[in-house]
Amino acid sequence: MNTKKPLILISNDDGYHAKGINSLIDMLRDIADIIVCAPESARSGFATAFSATVPLRLKLRRDEVGMQMWSCNGTPVDCVKIALQELFADRLPDMILGGINHGDNASVNVHYSGTMGVTLEGCMKYIPSIGFSLCDFSSDADFEPLRPYVRQIVQKVLSEGLPKGVCLNVNFPKLTEFKGIKVCRMAMGTWYNECVKQRHPHGYDYYWMTGSYRNDEPEQEDTDNWALTHGYISITPTRIDVTDYDLLRNWQNKF
Amino acid sequence: MNTKKPLILISNDDGYHAKGINSLIDMLRDIADIIVCAPESARSGFATAFSATVPLRLKLRRDEVGMQMWSCNGTPVDCVKIALQELFADRLPDMILGGINHGDNASVNVHYSGTMGVTLEGCMKYIPSIGFSLCDFSSDADFEPLRPYVRQIVQKVLSEGLPKGVCLNVNFPKLTEFKGIKVCRMAMGTWYNECVKQRHPHGYDYYWMTGSYRNDEPEQEDTDNWALTHGYISITPTRIDVTDYDLLRNWQNKF
Repeated sequence: MNTKKPLILISNDDGYHAKGINSLIDMLRDIADIIVCAPESARSGFATAFSATVPLRLKLRRDEVGMQMWSCNGTPVDCVKIALQELFADRLPDMILGGINHGDNASVNVHYSGTMGVTLEGCMKYIPSIGFSLCDFSSDADFEPLRPYVRQIVQKVLSEGLPKGVCLNVNFPKLTEFKGIKVCRMAMGTWYNECVKQRHPHGYDYYWMTGSYRNDEPEQEDTDNWALTHGYISITPTRIDVTDYDLLRNWQNKF
Repeated sequence: MNTKKPLILISNDDGYHAKGINSLIDMLRDIADIIVCAPESARSGFATAFSATVPLRLKLRRDEVGMQMWSCNGTPVDCVKIALQELFADRLPDMILGGINHGDNASVNVHYSGTMGVTLEGCMKYIPSIGFSLCDFSSDADFEPLRPYVRQIVQKVLSEGLPKGVCLNVNFPKLTEFKGIKVCRMAMGTWYNECVKQRHPHGYDYYWMTGSYRNDEPEQEDTDNWALTHGYISITPTRIDVTDYDLLRNWQNKF
């Protein structure tokens, strides 16, 4: 791939076969060369986990003009790490994209999302990175209304870059038309009722992880949750540096 | 457990049998009632991942005066979520602790660490939470020199609390005496050489995740990496809100 097109690494957490990642590829094929390295199967909720103890394999799934697709049996972050070392040996990507995720990654979900795991990992490698998510968990969700916005945001970041250590968490409400784009902070919210106990036929109890989400600041119009529930696309600029500088200053000379 | 002692939930990512978590329990048993819910086996690198598709089980491992220990086959975050719902039904813990981890969780490692996964999850539940880590990966690491500092930090947080949405990432250098405690920001650093290719006896290539770490700002004395390499214990106040407010302001009216 020695064209002058930008080179983009795409991964996700729903797996290489998911409609969301294939929609994203389709939206960008004319403006970029693309290498995909995505999980072999769904890896939702894998956050920035990597595989410390599991041997990992890469499999070439598609090899087309301007697009190669690999799958990996690891986590979303494993996909990025292995791809950067093994698939981009000659030229690092100009951008790393996660998604398009089937389901919302706003608010505290940034901490659980494998799609944002991809994005944070790209950002930790100092490569401009964006995670895209649609608030629709359906495997057949309609990504087509997102196309012009995805292209606009990708092209803006390709031409302007992003500050070092900052990536974007972009979420789309489940709509066919949007009121516009809002640049937001992440809302604080809480997951509750997070496990359900069931009884195995052999007589022991086990649990499924599940849960309900509550927005803890529903009146705050500057948050991603507010934007999404009011018809806007949310862009949440997201940092690698998680230091809380207020407490740092308060405690500086307390020890 | 209806005493007036504080009630503490302890988890980790090295597993319930690890020396680090058992050292932490031992350091705090006289000042708190303790419920442990920790992974059945090592879950290093699991970050804030949770198990979306795996049925989870709890097993009671020890039941003593003032201390119950449960294991769970899930991630560190699963342990916290299930414990809060199933083991603390009558009274939520006053504090959640992760560790003591066998190995450093400073700098960008906060994003991969299961010990900090425990801590961030506790913080997302608005419970004062601290992750403790020792820069020594050995399974027989010596945690004893940490005892007075762990007790001091725990007691300070039990009496003063922490701001909502902020937890502590505490790292100890591998020493028997410390120069003191420094409240720090997280250093920016980069992992590289992150996978090693090997050949399976059946003739295919596979990869082990590994890597080397480079501190990208070694001269910066206000960072956790600097503190640790200069003999200090580092406390990095760590936020749930990962919004980058600088880019938020810059981009506010750009769309």
